[in-house]
Amino acid sequence: MKGELRYEGKAKRVYATQNPAEYVVEYKDDATAFNAQKRGTIQGKGAVNNAITAALFPQLEAAGVPTHFIERLSEREQRVKAVEIVPVEVVVRNVAAGSFSKRLGLTEGAPLSLPVVELYYKSDVLGDPMINEDAAVALGWASREDLSVIRDLALKVNAFLAPFFQARGIRLVDFKLEFGKTLDGQIVLADEISPDTCRFWDAASGEKLDKDRFRRDLGGVEDAYQEMLRRVLADAPTGDVKEPA
Amino acid sequence: MKGELRYEGKAKRVYATQNPAEYVVEYKDDATAFNAQKRGTIQGKGAVNNAITAALFPQLEAAGVPTHFIERLSEREQRVKAVEIVPVEVVVRNVAAGSFSKRLGLTEGAPLSLPVVELYYKSDVLGDPMINEDAAVALGWASREDLSVIRDLALKVNAFLAPFFQARGIRLVDFKLEFGKTLDGQIVLADEISPDTCRFWDAASGEKLDKDRFRRDLGGVEDAYQEMLRRVLADAPTGDVKEPA
Repeated sequence: MKGELRYEGKAKRVYATQNPAEYVVEYKDDATAFNAQKRGTIQGKGAVNNAITAALFPQLEAAGVPTHFIERLSEREQRVKAVEIVPVEVVVRNVAAGSFSKRLGLTEGAPLSLPVVELYYKSDVLGDPMINEDAAVALGWASREDLSVIRDLALKVNAFLAPFFQARGIRLVDFKLEFGKTLDGQIVLADEISPDTCRFWDAASGEKLDKDRFRRDLGGVEDAYQEMLRRVLADAPTGDVKEPA
Repeated sequence: MKGELRYEGKAKRVYATQNPAEYVVEYKDDATAFNAQKRGTIQGKGAVNNAITAALFPQLEAAGVPTHFIERLSEREQRVKAVEIVPVEVVVRNVAAGSFSKRLGLTEGAPLSLPVVELYYKSDVLGDPMINEDAAVALGWASREDLSVIRDLALKVNAFLAPFFQARGIRLVDFKLEFGKTLDGQIVLADEISPDTCRFWDAASGEKLDKDRFRRDLGGVEDAYQEMLRRVLADAPTGDVKEPA
């Protein structure tokens, strides 16, 4: 089924298939942080992130967000639409945390009065620097029209996910999205939504249930990922979600 | 004429006057760079920046950009409308240079296909971090409406200044603007426009005629400032410009 390796990122491999309109994504256990200065492995991460993404993307589709997701194939693989990734990472923030709170001198955990959508240029070499729409357009990374669609979709994802996680006892602090363009030119949500790409805080205890446990050496990394998978699958519509193998 | 010192910045002092709707701005020769890690003096800078700003602001007013400027009072002083400064610095870029080219891995001097407007939070303590409109609104630094006005005015300033300087043999690479709100709530251009706040490159030789000469220890700093004053005053409408004393 898997053809040529098309792209290998820090946490996933993307393979061509016999169908030029489809890829297979394979989730790895490799973890990196601080622009790959810190490297490690989180046992079972690939399976968890595959399962969480496979649970969330169909629900986002149903909520009006087109995605690249087609189906989960195995513990670590999913079939997706072939897309060209827009090299602009989109971060949506509901609560000040991480680089945002540091950069702006805010207490981590301070709620924001409205969601903040930030753009970063997807470049490992440059460390994913912050950009804005003007820069992305001027440098040819995306059109003004595509960025407008992407912003609207990012806010729609947040409008779905924030209450989704709240109902499961999780505060959705912030998350990173990537978008791609299909062969027929549609902008769709791509990449993944997982504890690698979101900050999830337990609503009651404030405990971190995401990659910050790895970044900050908090221990219990694997348990946190498994706990997030349990929360995501709790009460989920059975038609959309397959249990991990 | 000058009352209480209301604000002292790196390059200017702002004084209250008997009229609550007016301030006096005094331009200093002090120069700082890299968030005040580098300090020095540029002889005559205060007089030059006062004269250049006093020449440009009335022409910008005539071009449809409301400003805080009322009149030049002396070699180093000007009378302005009292404003509360919006704590969002606006950078307009026509050419990749400085922090922008470094951050995005671009050759300094690469032209941008359209002007890029960037926002920075005005905070010496934090080193003026980059922000975007969402963050400024969420954190209460400016309203969405004010930021829309500010963006339009910044682009209007660029549309006036770029050809103004081109006609004087200068490439307007980028510049920083600050805006303020008058007592009656109008957003106006404030601060200054000078070799401290712009990158000016000689169109023929590429020679830098701005504060980068100080930042990068290129020598000839005072001469560059004087040369920029001469270029600004060349062919300027006499009614708007007073020669420096």
